[in-house]
Amino acid sequence: MKFCSQCGSTLKTLVPPGDNRERFVCEACDMIHYQNPRIVTGCLPVWEDRVLLCLRAIAPRKGYWTLPAGFLENGESIAEGAARETLEEANARVSNLELYTVFSLPHISQAYMFYRADLADLDFSSGTESLDVRLFHQDEIPWDELAFPVITQSLEFFFEDRVSGEFPVRSRELHFRRRNRG
Amino acid sequence: MKFCSQCGSTLKTLVPPGDNRERFVCEACDMIHYQNPRIVTGCLPVWEDRVLLCLRAIAPRKGYWTLPAGFLENGESIAEGAARETLEEANARVSNLELYTVFSLPHISQAYMFYRADLADLDFSSGTESLDVRLFHQDEIPWDELAFPVITQSLEFFFEDRVSGEFPVRSRELHFRRRNRG
Repeated sequence: MKFCSQCGSTLKTLVPPGDNRERFVCEACDMIHYQNPRIVTGCLPVWEDRVLLCLRAIAPRKGYWTLPAGFLENGESIAEGAARETLEEANARVSNLELYTVFSLPHISQAYMFYRADLADLDFSSGTESLDVRLFHQDEIPWDELAFPVITQSLEFFFEDRVSGEFPVRSRELHFRRRNRG
Repeated sequence: MKFCSQCGSTLKTLVPPGDNRERFVCEACDMIHYQNPRIVTGCLPVWEDRVLLCLRAIAPRKGYWTLPAGFLENGESIAEGAARETLEEANARVSNLELYTVFSLPHISQAYMFYRADLADLDFSSGTESLDVRLFHQDEIPWDELAFPVITQSLEFFFEDRVSGEFPVRSRELHFRRRNRG
């Protein structure tokens, strides 16, 4: 960040009065440009005893399987974002969304949140960011071809909890070096 | 947002190729400037049968009681941010943080997340953003002087769940018009 998005002046990096960390500050218009973590929201869509996964058509992790998920947009709730991403990536409609997993990934300043959801029908297909969309039984999950650790953990929790039928919200921190994309 | 923070050129508002909503786009350097919701993270600090509240010294809702909370910073986990805010606003140390409430406030593009936490000791005091910090029994809570609906709901859930001793994560959407600050 080099220029003020408000007035176009060159930004400085300094600790504003009353603050305790460096920010991008515009001394021309006094604007402080904060940078904050982003939320990635998605679904774990369930049909009977199968779950829906998408084969990624884009980087990072192109060609690996993922749960439908993406960045939460301004003006939508976290669950609305999860349903939207499921529609965009899998052309799939979901209902009865229940918050299930929450992951902090401080190394990339992201929070991931997945909702268990009922797949509404079998009329799904690949969205523009997916090469394929399929339903998997537990013993068909391509564990070695999952895109991100948050996907693996969410699926592990799900199949573990499915035994008891109790699905408490699971909150975890994942700490990786930057080259291991979360 | 008027100028590109990367190159200083004037931004346009348009739907980028492959996208489905308007973004701030720089046609000089091809940078797309996304804007996303922010996470507010905080604690519900507990000492025996009392909870800690802070009297706000700053707008919005100056002079109203709140749980210690603030914007999650880049590079920290959601729980780390909650503990940091508790230290900054109440000079209080907490342990055993457990995710408890998650609120979507799409009208202001924020997500609030509160952790139940054990107050480590009674050596707390007002931080720069607080006028007062106190412990309250359930029957002392200033219900009419709480700063935000998310504070009221988190405290209501807490005292309700304390009866059974079970504290499942509570996830809610709050929809308000803009003038009702979340």
